[in-house]
Amino acid sequence: MVISESNSKRCRIVVDAMGGDYAPRNIVIGACDAVKEKPDLQVILVGRKSDILKILSEEKLHFNNNNIVDASEVIEMGDSPTVSLKTKKNSSIVVGAELVRAKQAEAFVSAGNTGAMMSASTLIIGRIPGVGRPTIGAEIPNIHGICYLYDVGAGKDAKPVHLLEYAVMGTIYAKEIGGIENPSVGILSMGEEESKGNELTLAAYKLLKQSNMNFIGNVEGRDILTGDVDVVVCDGFVGNIILKFGESVPKLLKHLLQKTAEKSFIDKLKIGLLKGTLKKSLKALDYQEHGGVPLLGVNGVSIIGHGSSTPKAIKNMIFKANEIYNKGLIQKIEKTISQYSNVNN
Amino acid sequence: MVISESNSKRCRIVVDAMGGDYAPRNIVIGACDAVKEKPDLQVILVGRKSDILKILSEEKLHFNNNNIVDASEVIEMGDSPTVSLKTKKNSSIVVGAELVRAKQAEAFVSAGNTGAMMSASTLIIGRIPGVGRPTIGAEIPNIHGICYLYDVGAGKDAKPVHLLEYAVMGTIYAKEIGGIENPSVGILSMGEEESKGNELTLAAYKLLKQSNMNFIGNVEGRDILTGDVDVVVCDGFVGNIILKFGESVPKLLKHLLQKTAEKSFIDKLKIGLLKGTLKKSLKALDYQEHGGVPLLGVNGVSIIGHGSSTPKAIKNMIFKANEIYNKGLIQKIEKTISQYSNVNN
Repeated sequence: MVISESNSKRCRIVVDAMGGDYAPRNIVIGACDAVKEKPDLQVILVGRKSDILKILSEEKLHFNNNNIVDASEVIEMGDSPTVSLKTKKNSSIVVGAELVRAKQAEAFVSAGNTGAMMSASTLIIGRIPGVGRPTIGAEIPNIHGICYLYDVGAGKDAKPVHLLEYAVMGTIYAKEIGGIENPSVGILSMGEEESKGNELTLAAYKLLKQSNMNFIGNVEGRDILTGDVDVVVCDGFVGNIILKFGESVPKLLKHLLQKTAEKSFIDKLKIGLLKGTLKKSLKALDYQEHGGVPLLGVNGVSIIGHGSSTPKAIKNMIFKANEIYNKGLIQKIEKTISQYSNVNN
Repeated sequence: MVISESNSKRCRIVVDAMGGDYAPRNIVIGACDAVKEKPDLQVILVGRKSDILKILSEEKLHFNNNNIVDASEVIEMGDSPTVSLKTKKNSSIVVGAELVRAKQAEAFVSAGNTGAMMSASTLIIGRIPGVGRPTIGAEIPNIHGICYLYDVGAGKDAKPVHLLEYAVMGTIYAKEIGGIENPSVGILSMGEEESKGNELTLAAYKLLKQSNMNFIGNVEGRDILTGDVDVVVCDGFVGNIILKFGESVPKLLKHLLQKTAEKSFIDKLKIGLLKGTLKKSLKALDYQEHGGVPLLGVNGVSIIGHGSSTPKAIKNMIFKANEIYNKGLIQKIEKTISQYSNVNN
């Protein structure tokens, strides 16, 4: 395998061909779509080479053979992340992460086993110096635009300094990727006053207050959707639950509308008529439009996608990896986080 | 003041006339509506007697003067709960709680300062023997019916045994009030497997597993709205954030529909046409239909309402207090919680 040297303009993006419920088909198609749309991209498919070649042939797609890296094993969705990293050394996730660690690529994209992808990124690619805990964020559409929520499940039982780190990384992401000039940062808590919160948020409040970020204090659950705050930080346990709760809202909505329709024929007609309009309106809540989320704090670009990723989602994940690399996020996080190296909490 | 003796069929319900954004007017009207609809109820209004009489006169309402208890002070919405309980001994909240403590009433209903109401209930009325932490639940409509979520903010930084207590109280509430035969109980966590969760939920899992409740294991954020689980327990910090996030969903929905309407005249027409149907469908999410939430674990019925409570909400809170008393919830909680008195965690 020959992978060409990187230069500042060209990001080498490793894509886990075996990761996801519809792998390798959706992954291979998505990767080809990405290269077709942006021929400048250098995409490397990692996985069972024979499987990849079969899909390429079946779908009549062209992909540079030099950019396919064989990995004979697959970490399945149900595998234990920690165990499988040790026992499946030749899996696409381990091999992909190794490529980034060895500086043969700058980014790694996978829709596979989320835990394994997080562990591989953190343990093989490694953390950015100064980062104690990498974080996954969610871009939640709200009435002002986007609320960037960190952490949504990379960690749990966070310490106050981790919330500070999430704020640093979230601020940089919201600025560089979200285009927000001076992102406001809030701590997700039970009340707005400084005195409201749990042990974690009360201590984190003191750290954030001393920082030079645009810290606006505590925010509440409602502020994620309706408040005027750009970056919201919380423990990964809380963020994960919020995220999954939010993702289930459209299903409840559908159920409530159905119940109304069952009671009245007129309502049924109206709801039938509005189906398309509702779908259009809720499109903002569709993760596929965003295409995966980065694991920030890792010393390379790492994008984690939904298991059910479509080719479009995979393509968008590749584009996002490229954008994060081109905007120098890793370097910016390293530089900013070093300012807080004396914080020990 | 003469308040007649209680008997098993008649619950004496103290209503804080001064609590809420539209007090005393909404409270007085709601109390009169309750008595009018169910003349058997014995409702006691506590607050500035002159203010109460003025509203009764203005609204041309009849209310038994013997059931008005004067309390000259008011704990305002912005007052510190702990401070105001000490400095405003003659406030409607303190006087009301004292009536229950003195067995001159069985229930206390307030739409006033939530923190003060929780503190007064816990400290003045007192806890049920065996209960370490009282809890407030939310009745969240979901695709199967109702999900009873405990705790949504009475406590924070809960210990594992508190989650066990929430499960006991939630199970009794879901059975007695919700009419669910053998309520299933789940711990809100980051994954369904026993090994998934934070320090709190991992330890609570062990306690729940040993209990004789219908424990189904961990549930995720999505299961609140779409899962088949009756009672979900979590730390109050998490529950409070979920609740407030959920309450803000209709506002986001309205915003998303408006944005769609702005883009297309046809969509605008359709959305206009569907307004009533949507409103009807979202009615289930309206707290006023439920009318306040009980603080379970207190040695008396304590119902806490939303600050913006309408007369209808107040009326429903009074009905709920009566129902909880009649169904003997306090006694049932005391009896069941005593089975777990050896749990120390």
